Amino acid sequence: MPADALSSALLPAGLHDVLPSEAAHEAAAVERLLAEFAAQGYRRVDPPLVEFEENLLSGPGAAMSKQTFRLMDPHSQRMMAVRADITPQIARIATTRLKNEARPLRLCYAGQVLRVKGSQLRPERQFTQVGVELIGALEAEADAEVVLLAVQALTAIGVPHLSVDLCVPTMVSRICAGLGLGEDEIRQLRAALDRKDSAAVAAVGGPAAKLLETLMDASGPADRAMQALAALPLPEGAEKDRRRLTDTLALLRAAMPDLTVTIDLVEHRGFEYQTGLSFTLFSRAAGELGQGGRYRAGAQGDGRGEPATGFTLYMDTLLRAVPAAKAPGRVYVPHGSGWETARRLRADGWVTVAGLAPVADAAAEAKRLQCGHWLAGGDVKPAG
Amino acid sequence: MPADALSSALLPAGLHDVLPSEAAHEAAAVERLLAEFAAQGYRRVDPPLVEFEENLLSGPGAAMSKQTFRLMDPHSQRMMAVRADITPQIARIATTRLKNEARPLRLCYAGQVLRVKGSQLRPERQFTQVGVELIGALEAEADAEVVLLAVQALTAIGVPHLSVDLCVPTMVSRICAGLGLGEDEIRQLRAALDRKDSAAVAAVGGPAAKLLETLMDASGPADRAMQALAALPLPEGAEKDRRRLTDTLALLRAAMPDLTVTIDLVEHRGFEYQTGLSFTLFSRAAGELGQGGRYRAGAQGDGRGEPATGFTLYMDTLLRAVPAAKAPGRVYVPHGSGWETARRLRADGWVTVAGLAPVADAAAEAKRLQCGHWLAGGDVKPAG
Repeated sequence: MPADALSSALLPAGLHDVLPSEAAHEAAAVERLLAEFAAQGYRRVDPPLVEFEENLLSGPGAAMSKQTFRLMDPHSQRMMAVRADITPQIARIATTRLKNEARPLRLCYAGQVLRVKGSQLRPERQFTQVGVELIGALEAEADAEVVLLAVQALTAIGVPHLSVDLCVPTMVSRICAGLGLGEDEIRQLRAALDRKDSAAVAAVGGPAAKLLETLMDASGPADRAMQALAALPLPEGAEKDRRRLTDTLALLRAAMPDLTVTIDLVEHRGFEYQTGLSFTLFSRAAGELGQGGRYRAGAQGDGRGEPATGFTLYMDTLLRAVPAAKAPGRVYVPHGSGWETARRLRADGWVTVAGLAPVADAAAEAKRLQCGHWLAGGDVKPAG
Repeated sequence: MPADALSSALLPAGLHDVLPSEAAHEAAAVERLLAEFAAQGYRRVDPPLVEFEENLLSGPGAAMSKQTFRLMDPHSQRMMAVRADITPQIARIATTRLKNEARPLRLCYAGQVLRVKGSQLRPERQFTQVGVELIGALEAEADAEVVLLAVQALTAIGVPHLSVDLCVPTMVSRICAGLGLGEDEIRQLRAALDRKDSAAVAAVGGPAAKLLETLMDASGPADRAMQALAALPLPEGAEKDRRRLTDTLALLRAAMPDLTVTIDLVEHRGFEYQTGLSFTLFSRAAGELGQGGRYRAGAQGDGRGEPATGFTLYMDTLLRAVPAAKAPGRVYVPHGSGWETARRLRADGWVTVAGLAPVADAAAEAKRLQCGHWLAGGDVKPAG
């Protein structure tokens, strides 16, 4: 077995060592993202890796139950769960420990999550989640703020060809319910829409069929989609969703006229727990970078809780889209050069690699240690 | 129950939410430490939270077995363990995936560990470990490098009144073995030395008693300790330990003449797996900040493996010693001021907090949102 296959067999499937250049690349990107969040008033919180199962998996967290590892706590004799998603933890912090803080409450986070199974698209079972939550604001301005913040932060770390796909995952259900369709029919329609199957939509759609087909066809570039949507007669609940889409798009356009925005009017997959305007972030090079949208923070399945929105970025895909920063030059500092000499080189921006013993050929030693330069009698010289 | 007791009851004992200002403080300190490590050629690696139990708990990792949570991996049907210590993972990476990289190999890391039980001194069951490993170097220069790096990094993040306590945990055993004492007697002597119990040392020490008492008395400021040590007749193995102590101290003095160094000549608690020169980092204000020393990387209980040294810092104690950086000013940007206006304020170093809806009294709203300033017609004004 080659060395690499041997050593990867040391780790369980879906878990891996992040090796030197990649680990620094990820850490730098995470810190830069959090700095952008902080600059817009989002304050960092850091919940623990493990919580009591009943807290972590209640309310919206219940969705991750099958993906969550359990541990017995010998101290309390209660079951604990390793977090598979940080979002419910942030909502918990907002609605318990920070419940007396002024609203809107802006929080951000970065951390590792662990999942029982990888998916076909994302085989990793451990990954870094980075995101923000904006809690206690109902306004379209809040929806726009988190989209713009995501775009701003991704742009800051160098993601090229960014685009945002807006959707309102509640709209289809509201249209169908408004036109008197039952839950079974709505479920069938959802499945047909997911397959983009016009024939099935026509067959089961009844009074909603024509509307839904129009929505399906109109999905795409934002202006065309909104034009088509504006002309449609919508039931009352869906009318509210349309207004939120219109207002949010207008705010995005005003702030970032050049941003590529598309709208999917029938999307709901991956947004099962979203309660309003939602979005997916794409890069042409790397695919889906993250998603976000409206939910109720602290709702315990009763639909109450505080209005909230936010997003989560997927660091694994994201890093594929971002060029690593150029690493500073490494200079080999031969044995006996002195601590102060090396310190001065570092102050000048060099990475210093100290020789721990005398060597015959310092230039060769520099190359062996992956240093492009070495210190020769006070001067930094290329290692040749 | 007051709100805070209620919400802390939500979490298992020894686990806690790191709330806004503290989370940012910790993240900034961790990144600064890693930047100092990187500047001296230490490259970051990031092993997974979870590994197969047999790998994580073999060799030196075995020491943490009782402190380690286990999980069943449904994929491989094998037991996995949640790391309780990152050091064995770095040694694994060095001796497997990076075994073909040039030596000495310099690696650094930061990450969360989880433990079954907290200790009296450290009740937390989850904490952040930050450290370095220098693998494949036998020289005293390597011992000095990691001590100096720790001091340099801790100074960089603002730890005041730093001191280093050197020890060679193998020396007592080598003296005793060299003078013909058996394993049982050595164990009893260890216990007596741990209690600083001179009477017991005299009673069980036999031919080593006088030597050990001198070592015990000589522990303290480095120069005095070395003077006392230099005068002693030592068996051969212990003579090597003395030479390493002398050489390392000389290198520390040459690099940092003002560094406070003490030497404990009989210390071994907490260094059970160290094989040579070791050290503890202290701050007068906060106590023990971390420790490190020599071990064999990749040794599987057979004493082989590569020579290595390194250190681990305890972020919890450490943060108590470090003043948080002054947070940048927060400015409330009233509704309708425009994205570009807020962007310019951020470029000037402000944290902007956007108003999501019009308010009657912007200065009051700024104060409510913990902003010291607000934007009034293009000017940043104190919120009063």
